[in-house]
Amino acid sequence: MESKVGEIVELNNRKCKYTGNSIISVMEEESVKFNLNFKNLFINSQRTFSETEIVYRNKRRMTYNTFFNRVKGLAAGLESIGVKMGDTVAVIDWDTDKYLEAYFAVPMMGAILHTVNIRYSPELIYYTMNHAEDKYVIIRDEFIPILEKNRQMFDFIKGWIFYSDDGGIKTALSPGYNYEDLILREKYELPDVDENSTATIFYTSGTTGFPKGVTFTHRNLVLHTLALYNGIHLAPLEIRRNDNFMMLVPMFHVHSWGLPYAALLNGHKYVLPGKYEVGSILELVRKEEVKFSAMVPSILYMILSYPNLSEYKNDLNGWRIVIGGGALPKGLAMMARSFGITTIGGYGLSETAPVLSVALYNDSVKNLPDDQRFDYSISTGIPIPFVNLRVVDEVMHDVPEDGKSIGEIVVRAPWLTSGYFKDPEKTRALWKGGWMHTGDLAVKYPNGYITIVDREKDVVKSGGEFIPTVILENVLSEMKGLGETAVIGKPDEKWGERPVAFILGKPTKTKEEIVLHLQKYVDVGRIQKWWIPDEFIFVDTFPRTSTGKADKKELRKMIGKPQGS
Amino acid sequence: MESKVGEIVELNNRKCKYTGNSIISVMEEESVKFNLNFKNLFINSQRTFSETEIVYRNKRRMTYNTFFNRVKGLAAGLESIGVKMGDTVAVIDWDTDKYLEAYFAVPMMGAILHTVNIRYSPELIYYTMNHAEDKYVIIRDEFIPILEKNRQMFDFIKGWIFYSDDGGIKTALSPGYNYEDLILREKYELPDVDENSTATIFYTSGTTGFPKGVTFTHRNLVLHTLALYNGIHLAPLEIRRNDNFMMLVPMFHVHSWGLPYAALLNGHKYVLPGKYEVGSILELVRKEEVKFSAMVPSILYMILSYPNLSEYKNDLNGWRIVIGGGALPKGLAMMARSFGITTIGGYGLSETAPVLSVALYNDSVKNLPDDQRFDYSISTGIPIPFVNLRVVDEVMHDVPEDGKSIGEIVVRAPWLTSGYFKDPEKTRALWKGGWMHTGDLAVKYPNGYITIVDREKDVVKSGGEFIPTVILENVLSEMKGLGETAVIGKPDEKWGERPVAFILGKPTKTKEEIVLHLQKYVDVGRIQKWWIPDEFIFVDTFPRTSTGKADKKELRKMIGKPQGS
Repeated sequence: MESKVGEIVELNNRKCKYTGNSIISVMEEESVKFNLNFKNLFINSQRTFSETEIVYRNKRRMTYNTFFNRVKGLAAGLESIGVKMGDTVAVIDWDTDKYLEAYFAVPMMGAILHTVNIRYSPELIYYTMNHAEDKYVIIRDEFIPILEKNRQMFDFIKGWIFYSDDGGIKTALSPGYNYEDLILREKYELPDVDENSTATIFYTSGTTGFPKGVTFTHRNLVLHTLALYNGIHLAPLEIRRNDNFMMLVPMFHVHSWGLPYAALLNGHKYVLPGKYEVGSILELVRKEEVKFSAMVPSILYMILSYPNLSEYKNDLNGWRIVIGGGALPKGLAMMARSFGITTIGGYGLSETAPVLSVALYNDSVKNLPDDQRFDYSISTGIPIPFVNLRVVDEVMHDVPEDGKSIGEIVVRAPWLTSGYFKDPEKTRALWKGGWMHTGDLAVKYPNGYITIVDREKDVVKSGGEFIPTVILENVLSEMKGLGETAVIGKPDEKWGERPVAFILGKPTKTKEEIVLHLQKYVDVGRIQKWWIPDEFIFVDTFPRTSTGKADKKELRKMIGKPQGS
Repeated sequence: MESKVGEIVELNNRKCKYTGNSIISVMEEESVKFNLNFKNLFINSQRTFSETEIVYRNKRRMTYNTFFNRVKGLAAGLESIGVKMGDTVAVIDWDTDKYLEAYFAVPMMGAILHTVNIRYSPELIYYTMNHAEDKYVIIRDEFIPILEKNRQMFDFIKGWIFYSDDGGIKTALSPGYNYEDLILREKYELPDVDENSTATIFYTSGTTGFPKGVTFTHRNLVLHTLALYNGIHLAPLEIRRNDNFMMLVPMFHVHSWGLPYAALLNGHKYVLPGKYEVGSILELVRKEEVKFSAMVPSILYMILSYPNLSEYKNDLNGWRIVIGGGALPKGLAMMARSFGITTIGGYGLSETAPVLSVALYNDSVKNLPDDQRFDYSISTGIPIPFVNLRVVDEVMHDVPEDGKSIGEIVVRAPWLTSGYFKDPEKTRALWKGGWMHTGDLAVKYPNGYITIVDREKDVVKSGGEFIPTVILENVLSEMKGLGETAVIGKPDEKWGERPVAFILGKPTKTKEEIVLHLQKYVDVGRIQKWWIPDEFIFVDTFPRTSTGKADKKELRKMIGKPQGS
């Protein structure tokens, strides 16, 4: 080779810098190349944490050693019924140990894991499974009837793998296989999957039209796992080796925020709650000494509203919870704190694997008095390693970091989806200008913290100005006796839109009382007077999205047509 | 695009799986592609840890905020004097804050950092700088005379950047620049370096011939940093956010074992000792409350032999030290423990960035009584995440995991060098069969721990059987009153070779006393009777390699020609 060191040369049509190792191009392709895939990332977990446990409710428990043997067994079993690299395998289940086995086995064998949203209607379940081109389905017994009814529609499925916590299964879905029969004991060597192979797919609902599929590669998820764990050792989380994990983010939802992978890489006991039932969740927190969880605000509301909660006071103390999927209301965080629970904000999207920021303490706040740090811990937080997060105006200029100027969050990170599955047009919009557009509006503070003030699609625009609904919901949450709130825009002839607040629960407060409460925040400058909603509507129940958030699209429908027209 | 999902297609001459995102190939090249480089990895460190300190002896201290501004300033300054992407920039210095700035600035601007071995003779310094094709040199004043003497040989150097702790510098080396003048204040945007670009180069000495150059890419070092930090939170290290770091592995030596990068990613106070002087080191441990270090055994010997050590007893308590670059002798570990210092073994090579294994507690030993755990903590350890470490025989079959069968360690990991710089032949031998051959002989235990018993090149073969010199040195270290030892093979007509032990220090013990000590280990089966050395030679000083290890090649020379011939 006659190239000079440092020179740019063409090798296999790839531009490479000649580094002096004349052999490097051959080596890189053939042997030195090391794939960032799950097999390689978890290569030592089974042995290092051989005795650490994985617990499914009060029903089953096993060690990491057993778990990883079962993962390899499941991969062997799936292969034996015809699953090939690149095939998509759907899972339809609550958060169980078997789901966790599929989380590892399916990508590790080079297949693609489709985590089906079990909150969807049967029509959307069909739509997403068909769109994802699922070939095999792992399904829990209680979900079988939904699919069985329309089984002629699922003729594209080549095999159904069933399981039940309680014994036998009868179904007309075929060909059918028993999950436990599939866990083969024979030796199986996992393949060395290319790091850019797709590992997972799932669907995210938009404001309009059908759900959109997002895919993630092995490389995406490996790097998300490593960076996430590099983040969560900071205060106030301070995750340590002996902290037991139980995630209350559904496993169908953005990899349970990636924490199952982070946990099993680092040897944390991992507790799976099955179907979410507050009584059972609290029993698990007690019995398994759970110290770290993640969930959406509505789940925490449910837990803190549990009638016999005071019996668990000792068990709740020291529990650290990351709240995502929606802002962490201050009132909720204070209620949690009264039980010794530390809650902090976290932020990400289905499109971002998901974690972008966590409200950990950075150097500018770590030594502040507790009540001042508290406000930072419930913010949208600071970006974790690798995340390049900007808040920009319409022409992609960064807005001033003054805690006031509102812009859209755009990001770059090594674990963002490359695009929407089979939808080049929406993909182009998502990645416009080489940055992923989140559609979230936020302000940035001089010390690096960001706070989301609204979703672009939920924003209320009144008299040409934004009213940030997330901030309004937050100050409403601080009023004692008020439940969860959701502020939406109501069409208004004069102002364009005016805010209306929906409040969950019985009407315990009058409009005057609530306005008086809000006026206090006007007085200290936290909100503007003209942001105060025109109406406060108490409701027994909220329409919710499949991830448990208040569904503002549905709430807007409840308001109906513009009244002025 | 007519491809079916899952089909293998050819795109830009690269085999890709079509995932359904018809846009993915374009996106990957243009915008979604995210480089694993230092700029991206450390993007949030400056802000998150803005007030955390970097300390150079008792001379200078600065915050991360200042540090990263200076790093960008140095990159701008280097660019202003002509440094281009792909150029190699050498550093010749003790372990200083300026060295640390170069650790970041040089790779971050797309140049290659050559960490020159300052323990080499002037001839070897010239050889390695010439071989590496260095273009610029950052050099501390006290090293200038060595190079100035032979300045006509260094005509390939385009620029010399000087600094001094104490003021002005006069030199005939030219063109010359003052380091501090180069730190430009102007805004400088670091480039987005391709992850497969070379970031560092340095030289490693072999048994024969000239030193060999090893290179590492940004991707290598980014992944090493992330995985290393995922490892060191386990007991008995249990590294936490507030543990201050001070490395006593020279910065010219394998990236100071990668710990500067791990520290600055995770916000640890980082202390730089300058030239190693035990008195100053102990003062820094006290004043800066150092809790985590890494070093070779001889440095720890020096520290624990310091006359006024007992004055520092309180400061040493809680210090955790990883020992690498040679086995951790049990006697040394016990001596350290008597001061409340936790020492554990670590293992890696210049070719491996370096970390492969650390003697952390895995589940099989974490609950054992302390004295049993202790033996594991001084072993070669267990592999960290990603490291696929095997112990194999000559035909690459894994040896039984019985703690007895000896084989060579071969590895795969995402941070191994792709080869020796400009030496395809040695590269091929290193990577024979797609595995990196370490030349280290080890046994593997059923619970996953490995213990190195010898270097292939240092092994003593007597009567056709191996005598593991590392095990002999270890049991000798447990004898009170004996200093550091080094066992080598002496040619022997009858047996081929027979072991001879060199012992550092005054002859405080007779041969009979030492043999009696060793006989105890024969009685319990830890060594074999015929392993007992024929001679014990007390010496005032050891010849040492540039990394501080006893130089067995030189010791073999001291034994001279075969006596039988």
